[in-house]
Amino acid sequence: MSIRYPNGKTYTPVNKDRPQPKRQQNSSISYGNRGMSLEEDINSSNEYYLAKGIAVIHKKPTPLQIVKVDYPKRSAAVIREAYFQQASTTDYNGVFQGRYIDFEAKETKNKTSFPLKNFHKHQIDHMRQVLLQDGICFALLRFSLVDEVYLLDAKHLCSFWEAQEKARKSIPKKEIESLGHRIPIGLYPRIDYLTIVKTIYFS
Amino acid sequence: MSIRYPNGKTYTPVNKDRPQPKRQQNSSISYGNRGMSLEEDINSSNEYYLAKGIAVIHKKPTPLQIVKVDYPKRSAAVIREAYFQQASTTDYNGVFQGRYIDFEAKETKNKTSFPLKNFHKHQIDHMRQVLLQDGICFALLRFSLVDEVYLLDAKHLCSFWEAQEKARKSIPKKEIESLGHRIPIGLYPRIDYLTIVKTIYFS
Repeated sequence: MSIRYPNGKTYTPVNKDRPQPKRQQNSSISYGNRGMSLEEDINSSNEYYLAKGIAVIHKKPTPLQIVKVDYPKRSAAVIREAYFQQASTTDYNGVFQGRYIDFEAKETKNKTSFPLKNFHKHQIDHMRQVLLQDGICFALLRFSLVDEVYLLDAKHLCSFWEAQEKARKSIPKKEIESLGHRIPIGLYPRIDYLTIVKTIYFS
Repeated sequence: MSIRYPNGKTYTPVNKDRPQPKRQQNSSISYGNRGMSLEEDINSSNEYYLAKGIAVIHKKPTPLQIVKVDYPKRSAAVIREAYFQQASTTDYNGVFQGRYIDFEAKETKNKTSFPLKNFHKHQIDHMRQVLLQDGICFALLRFSLVDEVYLLDAKHLCSFWEAQEKARKSIPKKEIESLGHRIPIGLYPRIDYLTIVKTIYFS
């Protein structure tokens, strides 16, 4: 399907022709595809929302610490040494009908609970700050083996996070089913989380 | 001054001990410091807002196209080839009292006008999309020789941008003074743009 912007221009996904990272042969760990499926589904849903004028929500670029840059004559600057940094915020944010939207998306292969180690302290701190500013803040949690996606408000996620010292280190799926909201999986958009956001936060 | 978060933790700027990019000797062009001063002032203002619980506004990381990554055994992944990409959005966004805030910050050494070439079409398109979603969207424009900073609503910036085909390729400073809002320069925060935002958009 060719999506068009309101101005008639065809939408072209940014990453379409981007070269993929090459691995060296001594590669021992692969992080490359961890969580890509959920991320791709959300990115394509956000592209749909943007093209239809429904919302403006983007994934933030991965923060990198740049150490060395070459500036070859007559060609583009090349980064020759850089390292992945831990993000200090969530991955996604944007605007939907004037309101600030902020969320993190994670998936697990677990069947009965969602491990809290998927979230970093920085992200939880950021979510608390957003809640204090009356922003709409949540997590999209995917149980990948059954392809179920839930929206869980950040206030619940933060409570489970706080309690993990004296309680369990994961959120039971039953709690997510009861406190969260299941998002129907579709085609366009694949994960229509804004329809759920509207029923929860705009009524 | 040591800034403390509401939780009592001392605030440590993220970039403090970050190694700076090294240049090769054949470097012919330097982009490194272009606009850094305004950027640093805004970052420190945002850190102030965050520490005081006033707003949660962050600069987005620079988008990079990663081509080659090494995964050495027992140490962190090293990016060995990557390129700077043009951002598809503005640099700053976040939440202030429930409302979505989105802006771009640019400076010029010109005295009487602000060149429109400081903005990319992608950024203007993004600003239009944010305005349609009722987000608060503007540019912070600094005339660096006189250290004057103005907030100009995105709707005015977009109008000048559209008109540049048949009109001038820069915004006269007089128009910025009349349509925009001058931001007083202080110490904490250095560029207190949210006080201006409040008087414009929250009354």
